[in-house]
Amino acid sequence: MMIVMKQGATEEQVASVVERIEGAGCTAHVSKGELLTVIGAIGVEEDRIADLGLEGQEGVDQVVPILKPFKLASLQFKKGERTAVEVGGVPIGAGSFGLIAGPCTVENRDQMLDTARAVADGGATHLRGGAYKPRTSPYSFQGLGQEGLSLLAEAKAETGLPVVTELMDVRDLEPVVEVADMIQLGARNMQNYTLLSEVGKAGIPVLIKRGLSATLDELLMAAEYVLKEGNENVILCERGIRTYESGYRFTLDLLAIPALKEQTHLPVVVDPSHAAGRRDWVEPMSLAAAAAGADGVLVEVHNDPDSAVCDAAQQIPTSGFADYAERLKAAADLARSTPTHAGV
Amino acid sequence: MMIVMKQGATEEQVASVVERIEGAGCTAHVSKGELLTVIGAIGVEEDRIADLGLEGQEGVDQVVPILKPFKLASLQFKKGERTAVEVGGVPIGAGSFGLIAGPCTVENRDQMLDTARAVADGGATHLRGGAYKPRTSPYSFQGLGQEGLSLLAEAKAETGLPVVTELMDVRDLEPVVEVADMIQLGARNMQNYTLLSEVGKAGIPVLIKRGLSATLDELLMAAEYVLKEGNENVILCERGIRTYESGYRFTLDLLAIPALKEQTHLPVVVDPSHAAGRRDWVEPMSLAAAAAGADGVLVEVHNDPDSAVCDAAQQIPTSGFADYAERLKAAADLARSTPTHAGV
Amino acid sequence: MMIVMKQGATEEQVASVVERIEGAGCTAHVSKGELLTVIGAIGVEEDRIADLGLEGQEGVDQVVPILKPFKLASLQFKKGERTAVEVGGVPIGAGSFGLIAGPCTVENRDQMLDTARAVADGGATHLRGGAYKPRTSPYSFQGLGQEGLSLLAEAKAETGLPVVTELMDVRDLEPVVEVADMIQLGARNMQNYTLLSEVGKAGIPVLIKRGLSATLDELLMAAEYVLKEGNENVILCERGIRTYESGYRFTLDLLAIPALKEQTHLPVVVDPSHAAGRRDWVEPMSLAAAAAGADGVLVEVHNDPDSAVCDAAQQIPTSGFADYAERLKAAADLARSTPTHAGV
Amino acid sequence: MMIVMKQGATEEQVASVVERIEGAGCTAHVSKGELLTVIGAIGVEEDRIADLGLEGQEGVDQVVPILKPFKLASLQFKKGERTAVEVGGVPIGAGSFGLIAGPCTVENRDQMLDTARAVADGGATHLRGGAYKPRTSPYSFQGLGQEGLSLLAEAKAETGLPVVTELMDVRDLEPVVEVADMIQLGARNMQNYTLLSEVGKAGIPVLIKRGLSATLDELLMAAEYVLKEGNENVILCERGIRTYESGYRFTLDLLAIPALKEQTHLPVVVDPSHAAGRRDWVEPMSLAAAAAGADGVLVEVHNDPDSAVCDAAQQIPTSGFADYAERLKAAADLARSTPTHAGV
Repeated sequence: MMIVMKQGATEEQVASVVERIEGAGCTAHVSKGELLTVIGAIGVEEDRIADLGLEGQEGVDQVVPILKPFKLASLQFKKGERTAVEVGGVPIGAGSFGLIAGPCTVENRDQMLDTARAVADGGATHLRGGAYKPRTSPYSFQGLGQEGLSLLAEAKAETGLPVVTELMDVRDLEPVVEVADMIQLGARNMQNYTLLSEVGKAGIPVLIKRGLSATLDELLMAAEYVLKEGNENVILCERGIRTYESGYRFTLDLLAIPALKEQTHLPVVVDPSHAAGRRDWVEPMSLAAAAAGADGVLVEVHNDPDSAVCDAAQQIPTSGFADYAERLKAAADLARSTPTHAGV
Repeated sequence: MMIVMKQGATEEQVASVVERIEGAGCTAHVSKGELLTVIGAIGVEEDRIADLGLEGQEGVDQVVPILKPFKLASLQFKKGERTAVEVGGVPIGAGSFGLIAGPCTVENRDQMLDTARAVADGGATHLRGGAYKPRTSPYSFQGLGQEGLSLLAEAKAETGLPVVTELMDVRDLEPVVEVADMIQLGARNMQNYTLLSEVGKAGIPVLIKRGLSATLDELLMAAEYVLKEGNENVILCERGIRTYESGYRFTLDLLAIPALKEQTHLPVVVDPSHAAGRRDWVEPMSLAAAAAGADGVLVEVHNDPDSAVCDAAQQIPTSGFADYAERLKAAADLARSTPTHAGV
Repeated sequence: MMIVMKQGATEEQVASVVERIEGAGCTAHVSKGELLTVIGAIGVEEDRIADLGLEGQEGVDQVVPILKPFKLASLQFKKGERTAVEVGGVPIGAGSFGLIAGPCTVENRDQMLDTARAVADGGATHLRGGAYKPRTSPYSFQGLGQEGLSLLAEAKAETGLPVVTELMDVRDLEPVVEVADMIQLGARNMQNYTLLSEVGKAGIPVLIKRGLSATLDELLMAAEYVLKEGNENVILCERGIRTYESGYRFTLDLLAIPALKEQTHLPVVVDPSHAAGRRDWVEPMSLAAAAAGADGVLVEVHNDPDSAVCDAAQQIPTSGFADYAERLKAAADLARSTPTHAGV
Repeated sequence: MMIVMKQGATEEQVASVVERIEGAGCTAHVSKGELLTVIGAIGVEEDRIADLGLEGQEGVDQVVPILKPFKLASLQFKKGERTAVEVGGVPIGAGSFGLIAGPCTVENRDQMLDTARAVADGGATHLRGGAYKPRTSPYSFQGLGQEGLSLLAEAKAETGLPVVTELMDVRDLEPVVEVADMIQLGARNMQNYTLLSEVGKAGIPVLIKRGLSATLDELLMAAEYVLKEGNENVILCERGIRTYESGYRFTLDLLAIPALKEQTHLPVVVDPSHAAGRRDWVEPMSLAAAAAGADGVLVEVHNDPDSAVCDAAQQIPTSGFADYAERLKAAADLARSTPTHAGV
């Protein structure tokens, strides 16, 4: 932490800051420049300094964090080695590209099994499908619940694809863990600390979607909540952020891929469906994500999108899935051929 | 819902949209203009049309919602009459200005009781204090929990002020309800549907903070989750939104006050502390909120801010609280004297 | 400037950064902590270090600016003394509250003179009106131009109010300066460096509107372009920023008032009309701005808003102007009575 | 335009809206639903209705634009045919991928010629380089001006590459046109209507960068200012938008590619350099842009980036340029192989 004093800050004001830093059990290094004084508090638990609220103190201009707040999620923690998360025996990350495909929501047996077979044949590595759905409106369809989980189990048994499904309520953890190979935490639950901790304790792989207005640091801190419980199987997912642009549902932020991979050893995948909100924009964004170096894509696919009970506009049809998967693979290969890929 | 067709959309494309609307049990009114065709689907459950995903259909340019998605929260539902929420016997809204004051976190007996006495003497209408704290970092102080609740109960007994405190984990609902006169749901939990529903069922007054990037409609839909369970005691709270500006922690959005009050009968209060992030900016923003027509202010006050365990920079000291409260009252009176006040 | 090295940065990488700093004629202070190394370059022209692009260098984690990039606009430059800008002999700032009122656009003689008389009688300190209008669409009305300037001159002669009007094209500088007591630079021209420099050279007072997504630092740097030419008569204007919220045209950012006043000696006024976009929301935002400590308000007023050629929805009628002005004065007085006011 | 009345709007309020629409020379179609009334004004100049400010009228809930405000820029105007802009004889758009490469700023003869030769050899289609530089600070290097233009002319003569350079001040139009094959208008000048009109009149190809917080509609309206003067040679450029995320300089918004191409016949290129702000993130974003269907890339390349006078961190070195260009071509080919490409 660097505490930058205002120009003209007095000796007393500097001394008072030093005293508070030392009072928190840290060491303060005062560095007086021609124009202003900077006080360093390196090598300490930054959280304790952050909690001092020195921004509010007389004579203080700004408080600049130097160390990143996450530890277990950091690339340094793994000494630069990347993590591959094994999801139902199939790895994602560290060179393995994951293609997690399936319907937004489990609707019924035919829809789920038809779609599952099609994505399995077309090259998906994992199957997705929602049994519990977070909905903005209390009047919207909230998912099939336990029945949806059973249909996912059946689709998994038939296709052999590991299953990814969302958990919303901590009280549903047990039945979900029984079926899921990876739990998905939605964007609106990225900072639901109860869920993060409990899923951390459960030890199952977790895919955490970036919150609608979460910074990369906040996403990594959400991962830290899981990692702290001893669960190392975390995958991060960029899914579009909220900006002023209303031409699409969210602004897909692909710079997050290299920026996250510089900071963390965890795999980074992209959900192109929710940002696009329209099926003809899903493939351009999928190829872009793979070309930018993503470790995988989480995409909504439906055997009859026009009759889907939710997110109908953005689910791509199973009919074109195999061709889509092939082009996606080509884009991922292209990314792997770049000199920066190892570094990202 | 209005479905606007693209220029040059074919008869077949129009017919296909009409068919899907009618298939959802609604009526479609086709209106052909010189340049383009608009299909209306008024007077139906818009959710069902929204779920059709018509944006993705051939020939469709845009889908424009006409009816608001919230019902029980709307001003029309109460025929224009404003709601006063009784919190521990003291009303907020419909002309009653609430001043909810107290520390960010319950730290210890002295801090809690000293602060409570000071805000009670200074003119606060309700007491706030956190026993469970949502923290970005798993390594930060997470609140005193049950012990904090006991200290809140003691402060309430001594001062007579009704208590407002945060609930984070649905499994803590029972002990929190025992002490709290109003439950606070934090910005990061605004779309935690589990919490919203359970608090709705509990029947206790709820203060819902606007999410960091929530639209006003989404805030009202969060309220709808509570109202739908038969709990009418909901207060909305603007607390700053996330924007590109990094000069402060959040951008306090005071236009939300008149804009929300045009749509809803529920009271609207403002938390100036978290957006400002600095104690000298709390009063200007408090006065601004009151002058803009807010029904109350939720403000962090501490008997010794410099030693606070969290949010130290933004808590105002108890020493100046009575004067602050007096000026705040003057600003609220000024708002009440405007011709638009009845309307807002 | 602080250059924070990555954990594990090598001696060579540190030396290379030091070399580049010294190559730019500056001094580097290396400070090695337990976990990482920080290199300070205090007391130099930060622009030259910023241009080095050290963020891109091997081993560098981040580059943190310490000194603010503006000099003449800073509060320190005036040793903490606030500037009052004399506009046509009437001061704004340093305790003098400006109420700049008038129509969005000069439309015709009757409209301009009627409105001017009404705002003069109602308590305005200055008259506003646009002769040149920046319009998003090339097909929209672009203003009366020279004829509009003549009508402004006539209104000024009759009412005695100093005139504020917008300049868009540097080639119109001469005729505009002939009539205007203060030139307004619109939000979309905040970083039009040609206009800023030329208006700086002209020596006339300038009101600079904050760009739609300009940071406070960028606004102050725009002012610096004018100040650098020897023109000290600059007023800053908050007018709403662009955010994700679509419930209003812009999000009025009132925290900008205390935050700017902490940094600069220049007066800060607020335009509530463009953010609100609706006349019934203009008064709540005006009172909020004044209560938050603004040095003035720039408000659109029209003698017959419903027939206005542009911005009809947001212009307030002359009929209620005097009452509005009185309440605004009360809000400004309230702000002046706060202990933080002197500091803000 | 659709005017949606509030629930409970009176007959008089509806009649008053109809009257104002008809007073503006348009036709109003009233459509009464079960819950509310919608008034359509299709087939008219929407600008005139927009200027009425009906949002401010009693009983009006919202005003929804139906027709897009741009005409000449629309895909319909060209009946779905895409435009290739010839820049110095080399087309960009409609299947031709442009690779516009060169230094941020022209610094000196060696730097300019070395870089130009390298990008010409490496596969660039056009040469970029700034002689006039818009800088946030008046104290920063502002470009070589006329001398820079001469060096660009020399580089063009030697390599045969057409030249793209920025125009900032309308008074420099003549000398710039003499050298440039395409004029670049910067993000901060996207709504500088003086520049747009004059460049439109000059007839030279124009590349318009999207403003930092410009919507796609606003970008298309900026193009419309140029097109309206009879100049059809406009290229649009996505370069990153301003969001809350501070992990990079701007958030590159690649969804803008398919979204713009759905609306307009004009080519869409991407500048990956300014958003990334770091050279190792430039290639991932370049490949992503090409894979998403961009018509070209505008990239900063320098023969010795570490010694660049500005934007040093983000310029990629000439040494790796040929390999970069080859992978970029592969990504563009991949995009062309998708079924949506023709449509986008």
